[in-house]
Amino acid sequence: MNYCSNCGNRVALSVPPGDDRPRFSCESCGTIHYQNPKVVVGCIPEMGDKILLCRRAIEPCYGKWTLPAGYLENGETVAEGAEREAVEEACARIEILSPYALFNISAINQIYLMFRARLKDSSFKPGTESIEVKLFDEQEIPWDQIAFKVVKATLKKFFRDRARGLFPFEIGDINVRLNLEKN
Amino acid sequence: MNYCSNCGNRVALSVPPGDDRPRFSCESCGTIHYQNPKVVVGCIPEMGDKILLCRRAIEPCYGKWTLPAGYLENGETVAEGAEREAVEEACARIEILSPYALFNISAINQIYLMFRARLKDSSFKPGTESIEVKLFDEQEIPWDQIAFKVVKATLKKFFRDRARGLFPFEIGDINVRLNLEKN
Repeated sequence: MNYCSNCGNRVALSVPPGDDRPRFSCESCGTIHYQNPKVVVGCIPEMGDKILLCRRAIEPCYGKWTLPAGYLENGETVAEGAEREAVEEACARIEILSPYALFNISAINQIYLMFRARLKDSSFKPGTESIEVKLFDEQEIPWDQIAFKVVKATLKKFFRDRARGLFPFEIGDINVRLNLEKN
Repeated sequence: MNYCSNCGNRVALSVPPGDDRPRFSCESCGTIHYQNPKVVVGCIPEMGDKILLCRRAIEPCYGKWTLPAGYLENGETVAEGAEREAVEEACARIEILSPYALFNISAINQIYLMFRARLKDSSFKPGTESIEVKLFDEQEIPWDQIAFKVVKATLKKFFRDRARGLFPFEIGDINVRLNLEKN
């Protein structure tokens, strides 16, 4: 951040009065530009014993498999965001079942909120961000071709929980090494 | 948003290629300025049968009672954020017990994540944003003096759940009428 989005003048990092950390503040109009974590919402789309994965058509991790997930948009609820992402990435209509996991990825200022969900029908197909979308049995999950740590953590929790028949909402931390892997 | 925070030139609202909604985009350097919901984290600090409320020393809702909560900051986990807010607003040291409720306030692009928490000791006192901090029995809760709808909803859920001895994590929606009440 170099310029004030309000007035166009230069911003500088400084600790505002009463605050305890540096913010980008405008030296001209005084606007303080707070920066906060972004929320990613997604789901595990289930159909019977299988779950739907999407093979990414975009970077990062082009060609690897992921769960449908993306940034929460202004004006939508977390469930609406997860439903929208399932449509965008897999043309999939889902029914949200329950909130299932929250992962902090504090190194990159993201939190992931993942839902359990049920595929309403088999009419899914690749959206613009996917090369391929496919139902997987647990035995077929391509563990060495999963796009992100947070997706792998969600899937591992899911199969562990399914084996014992309990699906508690839990919070976890994902540690990422910046520039080496994305998340 | 009027100017590009990267290069300082004018931004305009337009739908970027491959996107489906208008974004502020820079006509000069091409940066797209995405705007996304912010996360507020907070807790219900319990001590025995009582809970801690803070009387606000700042607008909005100056003089009304609230739970310690505030914007999640970059670089912290959701639990760390809730702990920090308890310190800032009530000089209170808490132990996070469990994630407890998520409220969508989509009209103002916020999501609230509330935890159950235990006060570690009685050494709380007003922080800079509070006039007064005080432990309340359920019968003493000043329901007509609660600052925000989302705080009232969290407290109502808490006392309902406590009566039946079950504290499930749940998601709710808060509808706010803009310019009439804040949230």
